[in-house]
Amino acid sequence: MPYNELRKDYLLDRWVVIAKERSKRPTDLAKARPEAAKSAACPLCVGNEHMTPPAVLLLQSVDGEVKRGHDPPEGQRPTNWLVRTIPNMYPAFTHPQRSEDALKIFSTADFGYAIGLHEVVVESPIHEEGPADASLPQLELVIESYIDRFRALAAKSYVKYISIFRNYGLEAGASLSHAHSQIIATPMIPTMIKEEKQAADNYQKEQGRCVFCDIIEREVKTQRLIMENEDFAVIAPYASINPMEFWILPKRHAPNIGNLTPEEVKSLAATLKSSLKALKDLVNDPPYNYGIHQTIEEGYHWHLEVYPKLSTWAGFEKSTGVYINTVTPESAAEALKKAIKP
Amino acid sequence: MPYNELRKDYLLDRWVVIAKERSKRPTDLAKARPEAAKSAACPLCVGNEHMTPPAVLLLQSVDGEVKRGHDPPEGQRPTNWLVRTIPNMYPAFTHPQRSEDALKIFSTADFGYAIGLHEVVVESPIHEEGPADASLPQLELVIESYIDRFRALAAKSYVKYISIFRNYGLEAGASLSHAHSQIIATPMIPTMIKEEKQAADNYQKEQGRCVFCDIIEREVKTQRLIMENEDFAVIAPYASINPMEFWILPKRHAPNIGNLTPEEVKSLAATLKSSLKALKDLVNDPPYNYGIHQTIEEGYHWHLEVYPKLSTWAGFEKSTGVYINTVTPESAAEALKKAIKP
Repeated sequence: MPYNELRKDYLLDRWVVIAKERSKRPTDLAKARPEAAKSAACPLCVGNEHMTPPAVLLLQSVDGEVKRGHDPPEGQRPTNWLVRTIPNMYPAFTHPQRSEDALKIFSTADFGYAIGLHEVVVESPIHEEGPADASLPQLELVIESYIDRFRALAAKSYVKYISIFRNYGLEAGASLSHAHSQIIATPMIPTMIKEEKQAADNYQKEQGRCVFCDIIEREVKTQRLIMENEDFAVIAPYASINPMEFWILPKRHAPNIGNLTPEEVKSLAATLKSSLKALKDLVNDPPYNYGIHQTIEEGYHWHLEVYPKLSTWAGFEKSTGVYINTVTPESAAEALKKAIKP
Repeated sequence: MPYNELRKDYLLDRWVVIAKERSKRPTDLAKARPEAAKSAACPLCVGNEHMTPPAVLLLQSVDGEVKRGHDPPEGQRPTNWLVRTIPNMYPAFTHPQRSEDALKIFSTADFGYAIGLHEVVVESPIHEEGPADASLPQLELVIESYIDRFRALAAKSYVKYISIFRNYGLEAGASLSHAHSQIIATPMIPTMIKEEKQAADNYQKEQGRCVFCDIIEREVKTQRLIMENEDFAVIAPYASINPMEFWILPKRHAPNIGNLTPEEVKSLAATLKSSLKALKDLVNDPPYNYGIHQTIEEGYHWHLEVYPKLSTWAGFEKSTGVYINTVTPESAAEALKKAIKP
């Protein structure tokens, strides 16, 4: 009888039972996908630009070149965009309501409301062109939009963190099926990142090295490696809390995506597409979420975490903060590795 | 324009955006419930006792009296049970594999496997008789089973925590539709409880009082009170992370359910049934999870948290640990209060 393993996250005080006894093969997880209700008019499709607030960033194709711009405050809006970033119409965090709010040092009580920004990156003019299907040049433009908006938001005095994330599929929380990511700027460093940063600081003090650099160095030598290239390593983390979870880690130590080189942008697009395509092929196009972990300040090592939505967190997880994962990271890595197309 | 509020949990470093702009009325959340696939034979139904391991606890009706017992190791198993507690056939945590494991002080590395226990409480001989529908005497027997098993598991040297929880509905992770709860005994105190205990300890040192006693005292005077009686207060917590979330807090300070009086058992059954029935009536019988937070040692104040499954945690929540809740706790409390039948 194979015993279940109890594993702790590299950094977080977060435990997971790797449930070998209930173990499933990755292909056992495949199931039919529910369709998002098709609305008559998709507000993110070409021709419907007037249904959203004006874009703060437009990547347009002009005479065969990619040009940066934004929607004019009034009048006709361009329809020849490739990637379009707009304010979220139902923002979770809202921009400062009084000019003095933007100057204050963070304190929730002072503001009385959730200060920040919430944007939507429309990834493609093609309704359902997700990262696994988009062309590499298209995906590079999405990543360039992330970087551009990261820089713009990081410059604001009241912004302490910028969360860039994607919900793919209705079951993963994507209420609109048009390909899009979201960017939320918050007035505090979120719990999870704060804990990771603290653990990384402690490691740095004790070992004199970046803990993420060490994680990469060690994990690429294990069965948990999925793929690597000059710039990135893709691994199934040791204490994955989701079946088929994987992380994309940059080999160059940097706190955030703000200074990616053009070569790294190309490499990230290729890495992201390959790994998400492998997941799609392997488990019948499952819903997933991904999120970029990064900090504005130095002392962290950014990376992108992909969480396939193939199980349900239930009463145990929700009332303890301890997780049960029925796919071992080692078997997830093995299956994804095989499914990757060169 | 109503602004969103950013709130922190009473104890945890866990933030939630109370999203008033996206705000929904509780009744807007109602949706059709998917049915669990009906298997030919339910392993938890009367007559199928042989499909499970032998019960460790049976509450039986004998000559009009409730008797405690367990299944015989061999031979015919009783079918006249009212509540039946059995080992989980696919345990997340497994009992010690070597006799010396049970003696060791906890260390994952020493064991190499997830030591603990995992049991299932079959709440009723009637297939779908959940807590909102069961008779009060039946629900009292379920709570008595929780208490009995809590005491038995707490006495084991390798058990540091006992999680008692329930998944209701397929979308909340209930893979079997027969009414059942689960009990997991773990070899460590889970993250969430450890953090709560630490915050409660700090509060005790600073204020000389139990933080939960103070939470109850203050919250019953607010709009977040749903109902109260001599023994319990039911509130929608200030920083609820789930729409329609509520907690049942005992007024008598105690670390766990191990020493509930017979009157408190009756009172808890009535409180649990009333509040879950209100939720069922209000939002079209939604899926939910509940979990009892408690410690074996002194210095904590047990309570039961109910998490209706009416939204999806997506990329933002999963990559930051910050939550977005589209129903304010105040409107949740107001609606539940009205829906409670005396």
